[in-house]
Amino acid sequence: MFRTCLPLRFAHCDPAGIAYYPRYFELCDAAIEDWTAAVLGIDRREMHMVLGLGLPTVTLTADFAVPSRLGDMLDFAVSVTRVGRSSIDLTVDIDCDGERRFTVRYTQVLTQLAEGKSHPWPSELHERLIKESA
Amino acid sequence: MFRTCLPLRFAHCDPAGIAYYPRYFELCDAAIEDWTAAVLGIDRREMHMVLGLGLPTVTLTADFAVPSRLGDMLDFAVSVTRVGRSSIDLTVDIDCDGERRFTVRYTQVLTQLAEGKSHPWPSELHERLIKESA
Amino acid sequence: MFRTCLPLRFAHCDPAGIAYYPRYFELCDAAIEDWTAAVLGIDRREMHMVLGLGLPTVTLTADFAVPSRLGDMLDFAVSVTRVGRSSIDLTVDIDCDGERRFTVRYTQVLTQLAEGKSHPWPSELHERLIKESA
Amino acid sequence: MFRTCLPLRFAHCDPAGIAYYPRYFELCDAAIEDWTAAVLGIDRREMHMVLGLGLPTVTLTADFAVPSRLGDMLDFAVSVTRVGRSSIDLTVDIDCDGERRFTVRYTQVLTQLAEGKSHPWPSELHERLIKESA
Repeated sequence: MFRTCLPLRFAHCDPAGIAYYPRYFELCDAAIEDWTAAVLGIDRREMHMVLGLGLPTVTLTADFAVPSRLGDMLDFAVSVTRVGRSSIDLTVDIDCDGERRFTVRYTQVLTQLAEGKSHPWPSELHERLIKESA
Repeated sequence: MFRTCLPLRFAHCDPAGIAYYPRYFELCDAAIEDWTAAVLGIDRREMHMVLGLGLPTVTLTADFAVPSRLGDMLDFAVSVTRVGRSSIDLTVDIDCDGERRFTVRYTQVLTQLAEGKSHPWPSELHERLIKESA
Repeated sequence: MFRTCLPLRFAHCDPAGIAYYPRYFELCDAAIEDWTAAVLGIDRREMHMVLGLGLPTVTLTADFAVPSRLGDMLDFAVSVTRVGRSSIDLTVDIDCDGERRFTVRYTQVLTQLAEGKSHPWPSELHERLIKESA
Repeated sequence: MFRTCLPLRFAHCDPAGIAYYPRYFELCDAAIEDWTAAVLGIDRREMHMVLGLGLPTVTLTADFAVPSRLGDMLDFAVSVTRVGRSSIDLTVDIDCDGERRFTVRYTQVLTQLAEGKSHPWPSELHERLIKESA
């Protein structure tokens, strides 16, 4: 399981003084970006600009358990829960000081950016994902 | 069913040239803001600043069917699908030129901002919501 | 002078309950998008996707006079103050109920997106800009 | 001079594939947040939530020299260029691999959040700022 830590900034908080959920998704995306480089072995710059591939979200479900506040250090844990031919299921669990704050479950599909069509995982990446999901 | 129309702006698009999903949620929130004023009869300024109430999201599920591009005029339809004692289920369907782009299903809870506790719907608002959900 | 009106949304406000200035710039960009379509006669979708041109900002200066709050209806007035061979100076004045909230002065340069090089204004657009700046 | 390094994420890039300037300001704010904790010795959570103070921007000037792309590691250098009774001038220089990308000059004013009025620097903070600006 890949883990990273990101602070909840002023820019992420709403007038109620707590995290605004659309910014939570930006933070999850940041964690998945770091996961991509660490687990797939290619970073998003290479994926997008060199390989012409993207990983758009097809469905997501989010459960918000406890609100977060300015300055919270959030721990993101990214797990691969399913690997398809060109798709992937990811679960991102976000904790602070051991308390579950929220969870997001994603289905994403590897996509050829130029044509907008799904693209099968290259075998090397597929192997890494299978290994990660074990 | 409440309907509003919002343009997909440059600020909402990602390097792949399509809508970036965290911004989609900001647009849905804008539609729900307008729904609040139209259906509940109080706007968000009054709700937050005068009544000290908020409507944070507890769970959401999003299905992204077809990507949107810069300049698309998006039609938001907000439906009340369930009314609880202090909660509400909303479905927001987003179309462009009659094509379904994405759908978000929310459970939100009326919350006293100062204490962060759920707050029962005032009877007048509850009646309006029941009527709207019929 | 081109004018448009945009609401200050929950998404634009910070934990202090007032407009967060990076979101102010998104709102100014929305106003300049609408100005593009109205004054230049081409919208941003056509400019970016058909003509392959962009209008990135080279310098900007912002003066924030009075804070704005959730629900404020902001009036944006966009003026052309200088037209260069491939550049333009714009001033965006933002008021609410006749009170000046903030002003942003931009220098932007018409740019060929593929090569990232400045591009002279097509004569038809140059004429419209000169007329608008008069 | 305080220095920190932040990556340019997918969320920060626009349809032209380069950094979108309103997100640049969020990144500068993140750098100034880290500067606050390191140089003033109080973090933003304490400043906002315990002391009830904020540091809103009164004016800013930004010069964008060279565009940044997804995955760029940006170096932020924050300098104090002037210390007033309740105000401060900051310059943030942003480089990537030794190349200047952009510079933002801020005037910010220490503000009592409840009343929205300027607040003189507490003497301990004033001393640290004077030392930092030397």
